[in-house]
Amino acid sequence: MSTLIVPPHVPSVAEDCEQLHKAFEGWGTNERLIISILAHRNAGQRKAIRHAYAETYGKDLLKDLDKELSSDFERLVLLWTLDPPERDAVLTDEATKKWTKSNQVLVEIACTRPSKGLILVREAYHSRFKRSLEEDVAYHTTGDFRKLLLPLVSSYRYEGDEVNLRLAKSEAKILHEKIKGKHYSDDDVIRIVATRSKAQVNATLNEYKNEFGNDIIKDLEHDDDNEFLPILKATFECLVYPENYFEKVLREAINKRGTDEGALTRVVATRAEVDLKIIKDLYHKRNSVPLHRAIVKDTHGDYEKMLVALIGEDDA
Amino acid sequence: MSTLIVPPHVPSVAEDCEQLHKAFEGWGTNERLIISILAHRNAGQRKAIRHAYAETYGKDLLKDLDKELSSDFERLVLLWTLDPPERDAVLTDEATKKWTKSNQVLVEIACTRPSKGLILVREAYHSRFKRSLEEDVAYHTTGDFRKLLLPLVSSYRYEGDEVNLRLAKSEAKILHEKIKGKHYSDDDVIRIVATRSKAQVNATLNEYKNEFGNDIIKDLEHDDDNEFLPILKATFECLVYPENYFEKVLREAINKRGTDEGALTRVVATRAEVDLKIIKDLYHKRNSVPLHRAIVKDTHGDYEKMLVALIGEDDA
Repeated sequence: MSTLIVPPHVPSVAEDCEQLHKAFEGWGTNERLIISILAHRNAGQRKAIRHAYAETYGKDLLKDLDKELSSDFERLVLLWTLDPPERDAVLTDEATKKWTKSNQVLVEIACTRPSKGLILVREAYHSRFKRSLEEDVAYHTTGDFRKLLLPLVSSYRYEGDEVNLRLAKSEAKILHEKIKGKHYSDDDVIRIVATRSKAQVNATLNEYKNEFGNDIIKDLEHDDDNEFLPILKATFECLVYPENYFEKVLREAINKRGTDEGALTRVVATRAEVDLKIIKDLYHKRNSVPLHRAIVKDTHGDYEKMLVALIGEDDA
Repeated sequence: MSTLIVPPHVPSVAEDCEQLHKAFEGWGTNERLIISILAHRNAGQRKAIRHAYAETYGKDLLKDLDKELSSDFERLVLLWTLDPPERDAVLTDEATKKWTKSNQVLVEIACTRPSKGLILVREAYHSRFKRSLEEDVAYHTTGDFRKLLLPLVSSYRYEGDEVNLRLAKSEAKILHEKIKGKHYSDDDVIRIVATRSKAQVNATLNEYKNEFGNDIIKDLEHDDDNEFLPILKATFECLVYPENYFEKVLREAINKRGTDEGALTRVVATRAEVDLKIIKDLYHKRNSVPLHRAIVKDTHGDYEKMLVALIGEDDA
């Protein structure tokens, strides 16, 4: 389900390093060369390159990339090159520091990563920022938002398939009552979304639909005045329909007047090695235009080329 | 700081297994032999024995121990023989199911284990109970207790020594205001105890003492009507003065009319390989009697012998 294309014969790590080093030399930077290497190596290979680069040249590859590249292209290359947990640590740190009520990045990372993956993010956060993710989230948020976000980023959900249908029934009823009464940040609503396994939440939402007729996502849609509702809705979407959630983020980023490069970059960099193929197909279906065509229309230059490469549509 | 005595020449794992198997054979059980082996092997050795026992006899050593032993002795041997994260998973599961407002076992385990240790407990909880620790804790608790316990058991605190003194000052002030106003379960009080690193909480309590004259533990002592206060106090104690906390648990368990074997067993089984030596010294100082003498006075039989062995006072 990855869109990453790794060539059948990958050059040695030493060769990749040498080529990257060359790309930085002389007048100007060889962006095409950088894309041809980094956009076609998986996480393990990129990590090995970064390691070997430091050994060979005594410098951090990321710092050199930072020096040589600029704007959206730079951001995409840097995020992509980072090890996934470290990348998520950087993204959660930014989302926490610049936190606004409409920022859904914390929910996205807390709810779409595998349980152990989220622990690795928290570990990377420790080593990079000398603090814990949850302490920063708790410190920078307040009220209902803290009440939801703190347990979400601290979760270590059970990942087995076992589902308790009796419980799903009773918790579907709780959700329905609370949502009907507009008690969106009720203790039990938050307990259910923040602690139950994804399989269990899914079973609960099925019971909800069977029993009360509507998809819960639909029931969370009609309340323009409530600032908390969108983040609760995003939580359910990320837990149960992550690919649909990401398709929507891409759609909104691309349809926005001026394009939301931040969101586009984030989704492509974080999902290319995970489920971007599914997201891409969903995008095509939902928008009647292939994702790469929409991207080519909305972006340009090296940024465009790197995006197209990562979504698996260049000629590599 | 461990009280465990492992003999200089440990028999092979196969020999230990054979001896344990012999101890179960024929009329009666050879409890002395069981103690002489299990009470003198470290966690890694006990794990290897359990593994080899299953390989050799096709049976779970813990089930055989369960069948052959009884009452307090059985409980101590079983808890001790379990791998530490699995043992904590069992203890937290029991504490959650039989949860009462005065039960401090969840706080004790959440706040005295190293950060990675607590993650291992949550992992062991997944595999043993097919649910997450935090979902069970959230489900079985309510109100202020859930508000404190859920983030405590979900925490993955930063463990570096770095301390932010400015922050310690400002959070000491918050704690003082809230405690003075008896807002013990205030959002910020819980945020501070549940997310800050132990070093940071310690710095905050030092600032508290410098600025406001009293130890925070003292300020949390005078309110008989408040059910939440004892658990908040235990949280601070476990985070900053764990050995004092455990000494107090032992003291109260032993001084109680009839002895609280549950608490005595738990502290000895969980701390013997960690810091029981310090706790033992504190106990002696605080009670003017050595811990082993107090134990011998209050317990008897194989249970007494196993306790004495684990606190490092038998002739092994």
